[in-house]
Amino acid sequence: MTHYKLIYFDARGFGEPARQLFHLAGVPFEDVRISFEELMPGKQSAYWLEMKEKTPFGRLPVLSMDGFELAQSAAISRYLAKKFGYSGKTPEEEVWADAIVDQFKDYMESFRLFIYAQREGKSAEEVKTIHDKKYVPAKNQFLEVIDRILKTNKTGYIVGNGLTWADLVVADHIFTLQNIKKLDDGIHQNLKKYQESIYSLPELKEHIEKRPKSEM
Amino acid sequence: MTHYKLIYFDARGFGEPARQLFHLAGVPFEDVRISFEELMPGKQSAYWLEMKEKTPFGRLPVLSMDGFELAQSAAISRYLAKKFGYSGKTPEEEVWADAIVDQFKDYMESFRLFIYAQREGKSAEEVKTIHDKKYVPAKNQFLEVIDRILKTNKTGYIVGNGLTWADLVVADHIFTLQNIKKLDDGIHQNLKKYQESIYSLPELKEHIEKRPKSEM
Repeated sequence: MTHYKLIYFDARGFGEPARQLFHLAGVPFEDVRISFEELMPGKQSAYWLEMKEKTPFGRLPVLSMDGFELAQSAAISRYLAKKFGYSGKTPEEEVWADAIVDQFKDYMESFRLFIYAQREGKSAEEVKTIHDKKYVPAKNQFLEVIDRILKTNKTGYIVGNGLTWADLVVADHIFTLQNIKKLDDGIHQNLKKYQESIYSLPELKEHIEKRPKSEM
Repeated sequence: MTHYKLIYFDARGFGEPARQLFHLAGVPFEDVRISFEELMPGKQSAYWLEMKEKTPFGRLPVLSMDGFELAQSAAISRYLAKKFGYSGKTPEEEVWADAIVDQFKDYMESFRLFIYAQREGKSAEEVKTIHDKKYVPAKNQFLEVIDRILKTNKTGYIVGNGLTWADLVVADHIFTLQNIKKLDDGIHQNLKKYQESIYSLPELKEHIEKRPKSEM
């Protein structure tokens, strides 16, 4: 049996959909988490420094399968989704799942701008400008697209009538938005319900309850 | 026969790999190009305004196939690549092509930062900071990854021993870097040769000679 090892930071972020795919498929995997302490300058662990050198692109997540190493979160999740039956039922469903994840990644560009602006210690005014002019419009545009697709689709899933990895990516981010108080209880009620229904899938429930808590 | 219509701006950018896939496969398609003049505030054409409303995500490229509409450049190119036999020969080759395109898209984040900084009329000093601190390190990291992969792979292609859509994405951007004088004749000699070999493929040559000229 293939030994799967998923290496990512100790957060949900871009690693969590792959973890959830393993749980959905009931396939065991090694869930390696690099703590943020290990990344701090001066405190970097030997494991992380060696790892960083060896990863295909110097970044995480990495999925290692008996020595064959894969990089890039969407590529990893798409690969696992396909292997485990969560990539869509037809080429047309597959490409729609891909398109939604790409749309998500485009939106994450402004999410990162906003998060990094805070972390890099930009002035309150600069952070507010980035938040109001870049982040919020991009978030609203993304959530409107998702909301419209869910309302048109009427299946409770974002593509076709079954779960795909696009649901995992989107639902997990909606959870993040709740954590950081960026989801509006009124306008985004439908999206909250959708996230809860994905999180309640029997194969995911236990994992979600037991996983290490992280804001994002 | 499916009527393919690819709608994009009058540039190479994120639309060109899809166009090249049609030429590689010898499949006819309607190459709809929205001119930049049509996009200017006040001068927007009725066609573009209607189009913008109707696209799945309000963005281009869009691939329309007898009414079925697809968005997002990577999703579109991956779909066509798969249909036409340029997505990789095994699931492992496919995921590597995906990962390289995702890595490219990550790098494009800083490319866009730099290009927009110029277009938005930021001060010369701000543009220089973005160029030196964000764009150049990201570009060097990306080109080093590609160079290393090509040297390890030794087939003249970026994945396995045959052409994939990842080659089209990367080679076209290397061409852009030459146009905007961001490719170093010395260090990047190998990448220039690679780009020229992809551009010389018999199925692409005529298209590349005849296509509308654009810097990017």
